[in-house]
Amino acid sequence: MWSLSLEPKPTLHSDTPPPERLSGEARIRVTSAGVCDTDLQLARGYMGFKGIPGHEFVGEVVEADSGHLVGRRVVGDINAGCGECPDCLSEHLAGHHCSRRSVLGILGRSGAFAEELCLPERCLVTVPEGVRDEAAVFAEPLAAALHVLDELPHGFNISDTQAAPAVVLGDGKLGLLIAAALAGSGLHVALIGHHESKLALLPQLCEPSRVQGHLERELDDDPRLVEALSGAPLVVEATGSANALGRAFTLARPRGTVVLKTTVADPLSLDLAPVVINELRLVGSRCGDMRRAVEVLERGDVVPHPLIQARYPLQEADKALEHAGRKGVLKVLIEQLAS
Amino acid sequence: MWSLSLEPKPTLHSDTPPPERLSGEARIRVTSAGVCDTDLQLARGYMGFKGIPGHEFVGEVVEADSGHLVGRRVVGDINAGCGECPDCLSEHLAGHHCSRRSVLGILGRSGAFAEELCLPERCLVTVPEGVRDEAAVFAEPLAAALHVLDELPHGFNISDTQAAPAVVLGDGKLGLLIAAALAGSGLHVALIGHHESKLALLPQLCEPSRVQGHLERELDDDPRLVEALSGAPLVVEATGSANALGRAFTLARPRGTVVLKTTVADPLSLDLAPVVINELRLVGSRCGDMRRAVEVLERGDVVPHPLIQARYPLQEADKALEHAGRKGVLKVLIEQLAS
Repeated sequence: MWSLSLEPKPTLHSDTPPPERLSGEARIRVTSAGVCDTDLQLARGYMGFKGIPGHEFVGEVVEADSGHLVGRRVVGDINAGCGECPDCLSEHLAGHHCSRRSVLGILGRSGAFAEELCLPERCLVTVPEGVRDEAAVFAEPLAAALHVLDELPHGFNISDTQAAPAVVLGDGKLGLLIAAALAGSGLHVALIGHHESKLALLPQLCEPSRVQGHLERELDDDPRLVEALSGAPLVVEATGSANALGRAFTLARPRGTVVLKTTVADPLSLDLAPVVINELRLVGSRCGDMRRAVEVLERGDVVPHPLIQARYPLQEADKALEHAGRKGVLKVLIEQLAS
Repeated sequence: MWSLSLEPKPTLHSDTPPPERLSGEARIRVTSAGVCDTDLQLARGYMGFKGIPGHEFVGEVVEADSGHLVGRRVVGDINAGCGECPDCLSEHLAGHHCSRRSVLGILGRSGAFAEELCLPERCLVTVPEGVRDEAAVFAEPLAAALHVLDELPHGFNISDTQAAPAVVLGDGKLGLLIAAALAGSGLHVALIGHHESKLALLPQLCEPSRVQGHLERELDDDPRLVEALSGAPLVVEATGSANALGRAFTLARPRGTVVLKTTVADPLSLDLAPVVINELRLVGSRCGDMRRAVEVLERGDVVPHPLIQARYPLQEADKALEHAGRKGVLKVLIEQLAS
């Protein structure tokens, strides 16, 4: 089958053997896959991953132990746990921290930049008819974006964000999606970015009345804006550079929550004094609940497809990765025509 | 009156004017005051504080708007908020984050290394007869130690620590007190320190069956011990060096809580990758509820006086500070005889 693999440079292959389907797993024909910054980091050596990357996908089940799944359109939780440990047996986000887990396209499991992939059946979520592939392919990053809601402290009052909006730092594809996910969930959100063209997408992604975009340089020029955005109950760092944590700490209100979404590969220099003095909570946040993401897409609370900037056939997946790596590019899809 | 002030070197004075008592405040004759590491940091220039330090105290009210307070033995919340802002009007830990607050002996308010201090009446907690001065003087640091319990996530199960104990890093006076506070509150606790003599104090401070002490070098030598302490639901960093956060991140279980108790004055280099990958929560933690601390002392759940290593009269407060600054010294008290 066709695939793009890292060895360690991204290389196209037309003769990759299809992935082995283990008991309990489904084989899925990938219809569409999204390129994530993590894929670009993997290509630069992160995690030492050498196989086929890709973990954002929508596809069709072609083979499974459970016959009723065959032919269904699915997305999937990328964390394939052992299924037996306490983490796997927990109800909420089961297996996300299983120490024996594989992670689709990231750790010990071939990913979605290929004609086919395999995942445990329990990881799969079927996609309702009303959700098109170009929306469903965002289910995984949208689940991760919505997972920010799980980090809110007990008793967090969404209506508080009317007076003091939640702040998202970073107008890359993840930052935009997080802002839309939060606004789509009822929070009032301010996104701080660098590109007017990206901020202009916000009203297309979610309920426009709940989201405002600001250029970072506006903050530098306008103390009143800084004042208005300070005291945020929630700040999400999604700039791609954990150095933005300093700004996040400044904007968060005492006892506020700062969610770190950026994948951090290297140690960084950080002033933690505000964390102690203001008793901030810094929470790392990774993958979320795929079911919730599909529900949000079905209700139309978040409309992600305006983030798509380019589509490539699988046979040009190398070009897709190159395109996605250009500065300022939002979502690039790798697609496979129906055979 | 006698006092020790920082200008910027700690200097004894016999002729300091008594602090001005404002409306709503009580004047308190300090019976006993504890030297905290923060006092030593203030003496080195932290916070730019130049007046009389000292924020751990027990004393007797000598003058107050509310007559019934006069003559009462009290301890006090060191955060004196404006009394009007939303933070001050909140029920829980009111005023701890008031932007106009003064902080006893730390920020804009003369402290406890003096014959007298003033605090708003609403900050005071009367000390029950059964609690001796040598215990009551620990109310402030004990409140801060117990405040770790407020950082636990909703649904945290104390009995989980039977299988995987909470870990406290640091066997200084704060680390020991935190371990005792947690054990006194029903958690099972492992304290990791550097000094056998300090770890040996643990059974005197709280219910011995719930607390275990380990030397850091045991961890380096014994992978089984590391295994046993890994996966901690709660890790408290109280070494005095935020560099220990790296170890804290390693010991915490996925989605676990790491509480940062060390006052951090300088930026540090930190690898946040485990925070994201394991979705840890890093929480800064400062002052706590003085009422709860006094209740814990009254019940005898924590017995802090074995931490006392030296007592000096106020007239030798400079020697007390010098003594407290020596490596490895636990609590030093500054006392005033009844006049």
